[in-house]
Amino acid sequence: MKYTSMENLHFLIKEVHPIQDLLSASLYQDYDLESFDIMLSAAKDLADQYYFPYFREMDEQPVRYEDGKVIVHPMLGEIIKQTAENGWFGSCFSYEDGGMQLPQMIFHAASHIFQAANNHIVGYNNLTTGSSNLIVTFGSQELKDQFVPNMLSGKWMGTMALTEPQAGSSLSDITTSATPLQDGTYSIKGQKIFISGGDHQFAENFIHLTLARIDGAPAGTKGISLFVVPKFRQESDGSLTNNDVLVAADFQKMGQKGYATTHLLFGENDNCIGYLVGQLNQGLKYMFQMMNEARIDVGLTAASTAYAAYFASLQYAKERPQGRSLSRSGKKNINEEQTLIINHPDVRRMLFLQKAIVEGALSLLFECSKLVDLHKISDGEAKENYHLMLEFLTPIAKTYPSEMGRESINSGLQVLGGYGFCNDFPLQQYYRDIRIMSLYEGTTGIQSLDLLGRKVPLKNGKALQLILNEINKTISDAGKIEALNPYSDQLNNKVQLVGKTLQYLSKFANEGDFESYLADATVFMEMTSTVVVAWQWLKQTIAASEALGNQTGKFESIFYESKIHTMKFYFRYELPKTIGLAETLTNPEMLTILKEKELIL
Amino acid sequence: MKYTSMENLHFLIKEVHPIQDLLSASLYQDYDLESFDIMLSAAKDLADQYYFPYFREMDEQPVRYEDGKVIVHPMLGEIIKQTAENGWFGSCFSYEDGGMQLPQMIFHAASHIFQAANNHIVGYNNLTTGSSNLIVTFGSQELKDQFVPNMLSGKWMGTMALTEPQAGSSLSDITTSATPLQDGTYSIKGQKIFISGGDHQFAENFIHLTLARIDGAPAGTKGISLFVVPKFRQESDGSLTNNDVLVAADFQKMGQKGYATTHLLFGENDNCIGYLVGQLNQGLKYMFQMMNEARIDVGLTAASTAYAAYFASLQYAKERPQGRSLSRSGKKNINEEQTLIINHPDVRRMLFLQKAIVEGALSLLFECSKLVDLHKISDGEAKENYHLMLEFLTPIAKTYPSEMGRESINSGLQVLGGYGFCNDFPLQQYYRDIRIMSLYEGTTGIQSLDLLGRKVPLKNGKALQLILNEINKTISDAGKIEALNPYSDQLNNKVQLVGKTLQYLSKFANEGDFESYLADATVFMEMTSTVVVAWQWLKQTIAASEALGNQTGKFESIFYESKIHTMKFYFRYELPKTIGLAETLTNPEMLTILKEKELIL
Repeated sequence: MKYTSMENLHFLIKEVHPIQDLLSASLYQDYDLESFDIMLSAAKDLADQYYFPYFREMDEQPVRYEDGKVIVHPMLGEIIKQTAENGWFGSCFSYEDGGMQLPQMIFHAASHIFQAANNHIVGYNNLTTGSSNLIVTFGSQELKDQFVPNMLSGKWMGTMALTEPQAGSSLSDITTSATPLQDGTYSIKGQKIFISGGDHQFAENFIHLTLARIDGAPAGTKGISLFVVPKFRQESDGSLTNNDVLVAADFQKMGQKGYATTHLLFGENDNCIGYLVGQLNQGLKYMFQMMNEARIDVGLTAASTAYAAYFASLQYAKERPQGRSLSRSGKKNINEEQTLIINHPDVRRMLFLQKAIVEGALSLLFECSKLVDLHKISDGEAKENYHLMLEFLTPIAKTYPSEMGRESINSGLQVLGGYGFCNDFPLQQYYRDIRIMSLYEGTTGIQSLDLLGRKVPLKNGKALQLILNEINKTISDAGKIEALNPYSDQLNNKVQLVGKTLQYLSKFANEGDFESYLADATVFMEMTSTVVVAWQWLKQTIAASEALGNQTGKFESIFYESKIHTMKFYFRYELPKTIGLAETLTNPEMLTILKEKELIL
Repeated sequence: MKYTSMENLHFLIKEVHPIQDLLSASLYQDYDLESFDIMLSAAKDLADQYYFPYFREMDEQPVRYEDGKVIVHPMLGEIIKQTAENGWFGSCFSYEDGGMQLPQMIFHAASHIFQAANNHIVGYNNLTTGSSNLIVTFGSQELKDQFVPNMLSGKWMGTMALTEPQAGSSLSDITTSATPLQDGTYSIKGQKIFISGGDHQFAENFIHLTLARIDGAPAGTKGISLFVVPKFRQESDGSLTNNDVLVAADFQKMGQKGYATTHLLFGENDNCIGYLVGQLNQGLKYMFQMMNEARIDVGLTAASTAYAAYFASLQYAKERPQGRSLSRSGKKNINEEQTLIINHPDVRRMLFLQKAIVEGALSLLFECSKLVDLHKISDGEAKENYHLMLEFLTPIAKTYPSEMGRESINSGLQVLGGYGFCNDFPLQQYYRDIRIMSLYEGTTGIQSLDLLGRKVPLKNGKALQLILNEINKTISDAGKIEALNPYSDQLNNKVQLVGKTLQYLSKFANEGDFESYLADATVFMEMTSTVVVAWQWLKQTIAASEALGNQTGKFESIFYESKIHTMKFYFRYELPKTIGLAETLTNPEMLTILKEKELIL
C-alpha cells in the first residue's frame, strides 16, 4: 500500500522550495543533496517496516488505562527505539547538543513520511524533540545535561503540560502552583489534562514541560513560569525516585486511539519537584517556541494523514469496476463491461479535490520549514523578516491542513461508497484520526484569532506585507509564462479581495470595536488560507512548467502535467469560495455578538 | 438531555407547513390538531423511555455476528414491540390495510422524534413499513394477507435487498437470479450486501424485498423483477420452514453500530423460494417507491441526528465557563470571572450554523411530507403537480441534510473543544453516525446526477418550474413584510443565479454533450440545495413574523425572534457560497472528464 509519494516530497524540497539555497551555510556544511536522499530513503524504509504495518492495529487495540498505568501497543517501544537510533529525535539540534544539525526541511520530510505511515506514533517522538528543544534553548546547562541526552536517545520521553480542567484554551486561568523550596527547586501541585504521550510502559521516565504559577505571581499569563517536572527525579547517585506524578486516566477518543491522551496529577502527596526553566514568569513566552513548532507539526500530521487517505482511495478507484461512461446520447451501453470508477467525472473530482488540498497543504508546510532554516542561518533584518513570515503563516499552516484535510478525507471516504464507512477499509480510520487536528494546540477558532488579531497587525502589518511580497513575486514569475497568465491574474484578483476585506474589517479595529473586528476571524482564516494555498499551487506550477520546458526535471513529464492540472482544479473548484467568504465578511449585519437577548440560542 | 425541540416540530407542522390544510380531506376525517398533539406527545414519551436511553449503549455494544447469527442490543426487541403496539409501523396505511390512516407529516414527525433520540433503531421500523408498503401497493391480495399483518405488528420485519458485491450503485448489473418453478413461485439465487436490518434475534421472520433477474430477462434495469423472499416460508399449515437465506456476515462500521448491515446469501442450497410482486420486469420501477421514501427518510435521520447533536453542544456551551469577553480596548480583564463559552462570538457562530442547517433541513423535509399528503388527497393535474414537486425535491431532501448535517455536527463537536473528540461526550458518536447518510440509498453523486440529469429536465422542466413558482410565491409574500425585503431580494438574486447557471449548463445538453452537462452535478446540487434551504428559512421567517405581528403564535416571542435571527445568519453565512459555486460551474475549463491521459491521477 502506498501512503505517500517520495516523488512529490523530492519535488517540494528540491524544485519548489529548493533546499539547495541552504547548503552554502556553514551550519549545513556536512550535507549535500545526496546525503539528504540517503536519509529520506532510510526514513521511508523505517516507516515501511515499523510505522505503516501497525497503523490499523493501533486503532483496533487502543491505548488503555489499567491500575494507574497507560498501556500502549506492544510494538511502540521498538518503534521509538529504532527512530531514536536513526537520530530523528533532535535531528536539527546542533552537534554540541547531541543532534545531527540537519535542516528543518529534512526533519519535516522524515516526519511527513512517518506521519503518513502512522499518525498515532509521531507525536511521541516530536513532543520529546520539542520539549528537549525547550530545555536546550531556555534551560540551564545543568538541566540540559541531566535531561536532554536521555531524551534524545528515546530512553526518556517528553511532553508539554499546559491544559487544565478549568482552563482549556484560556491559559491565563491555569492554577497549577509552584512553591519555592530552599534548594532552588519548586514543589508542584495541580492537574493537567489532555497531555499527549503523557505516559506508557516503554519509557524509563517522562519529562513534563509544565506551566505553573509561582506563589504570589501576577494574575494572568504574566505570572506563568515553565518547569521541568519529571515522573521520576534523579538522585545525586543517579538512581530514580518517584516524583509524585500520577496518571489519573487516559482519555478514550474517537480516533488516534494508539496515541495516549492522559490526565496527570502533580503533587497529590506534596512530593512533586519541578525545576524552573529560564526566568521567573516567562513560561508562556518560552512555551510558545514549542507551541509554534507543535502547530506546524499538527498541520504536517493532518496533511500527511490526508495524503495517505488519498492514496488509499486512489488505489480503490483504480481497481473497482462499476457503472459505465455516458455515450454522446446521454445513455449507457449496458452490454459494455463496467468501467473503473476512476473514469467517472464525479470520482475524478473527488480524487482531484484530495490531491489539490493535500499537495497544496504540503507545499505550504515546506514553505514554513524553509523559513525556519533561513531564519536560523541569517542575520539582521533578513533574520527578523523570516521570523515574521513564519509567524504569519503558522496559524494557517496549522489550520488549513486540519480543516481541509478533513474535507479531503471525507471526499476520499465517499470514493469508496459504502465500503468507505466499513472497518474493512482504512478510510474510516483516517476520517476519525484527522478530526482531532483542528482541536490540538489551539483550536481553529484560536488560530483564527491569532491570525487576524495578532499576526495581521504584527509590527504594523509588516508580517502581512512580507508575505504579500512573496505572493506577488510568485504572481509576477507566473506572469512570465504565458500559459499561466490566467491563473496569475486570478490569484492577483483574490489577493486584492483579501486586501479589500481586511480594509473593511480594519475600520472596526480603528474604531476600537475589537469584538466586531474579530467576530468572524474563522471566516477570515478560511478565506486567507484558501488564497495562500492557491499561491503554493502557482509556485508548484511554475516549478513544474520550468521542469517541463527545460526538461530539467527529475521526474516523468506526466508528474509535472498532473501538478499543472491539479493547480487548474484548485483554481476552478476551491479558489472561487473566497468570493462568497468576502461577501460574508463585509456584510454589515453583525449576528454573533452577544446582545442582551442571550436566550436567542 | 434534550435531543429535539417539540416547539420547533409544532411550529413546522402547524405554522410553516400547516397540516390544517389536510384536515378537510375525507381520508383524515377522524383527526384534528388535538389528536395529532396527543400522538406526538406519546411518541415523545416512547422516545424518552425506549429510544434515547440506549443511544450510547448501542454504540458501545455494537451489533455482532456469531455462528451465522446477528446479535443486536438486548433491548431492541422490546423497543420494536412498543413502537409497533403504538401503531407506528404502517401508520399511514389505510384502515383496510391495517394502518391508522395518518398523514405522512405526522408519521415523519414521530420518526423525527425517534431518530433524534436514537438513530440506530428507526431503520428497523421504517424498512419494515416501506417493504410492507411495497407489498400493499404492488402485491397480490394473497401476498398482502400472508405478510403484511405480521410485519405491521412487528413480529416479522422487512428489508430492501438491492445491492450486490459487483454492482453497488449500478443496479443494471445485478445478477441475482430467479428461476420459475411450476407452482408460480421462483427459485432465488444470489448475494446481497449492505442489507440494513437484515437479521437479528428479535424477529420471528425477515421479509426481504429483493431485486432479481428472471432467467432470460432483458439485460440492464429493464430485466429486473421484484420478489418477496422470506427468511422462513410459511407452509399451508402455518408452520415456518427455513427458506435458505443465510447471513454470511455483518459489516462492522464506523458508526450506527447498533444497526445491522448484513451480507445475505440466497439459495446457497438451491432451496430459496421467492414470490413475484406485480408484473415481470417492473421490479426497479416498483422499488423506486420504497427508494424514494427511504431517501427522504435518510434525510430525516440525518437532520434529526444533527438536531440532537445541536442540543448536546448547546447545553455544553451554556454550562462551560472559559475565557473572557473582549473589552472595548481589545484586552481582557483577567480579574473578571470566566464567561460561559456561549458568549464568545465564534462559539455563537458555530451554534447558529448548526441551528441554521438543521432547522432549515427539517423545514424542507416537512415540505416534502406535506407534498406526499397533498398528492394522496388530490386528483388530476394538482395530484400530478404535487408528485412532480416531490420528485424534484427528493434528491435535495436526501442530500442537504446528509452533507450539511455532517458539517453541522462537525461544528458542534468543535464547540466542545478537545472533549468533543472524547468518548465521554456524545458529539463524537453523532459525528461518526451521520457519515453514512451521504452513502445510503444512492450516494451524493448519484443524487446529484438524479437532480441535474433527471429531475431538472423532467416533463420538459415542469417539475423545476413548479418549485420555482413556490419559491417565488415565498419571495413575494416576504416582500409584503418590509423588514424582510432585503432577504427576499437576496433570495431572488440567488434564484436568478441558479437559473443563469442552468442556462449555461444546458448548452452542453442541447449539444448532446451529456458528460460535460453532468460532470459537476454535485457542485450544482450544493448550489441548488443551498438556495432551496434559504427558501425554507424565508418561509419559516414569514410564519414567525406573522406570529409576532398578530400575536397569534403559540410560542413565546423569543422563539420567533430566534427563527428570524437564524434566517439572517443563514443569509449572511451560507447563502453567499452560491456565488463561488456558480463561478465554478460556469468556468469553461473542464478538468474531470477522462481524456487520454488517465495517468494524470
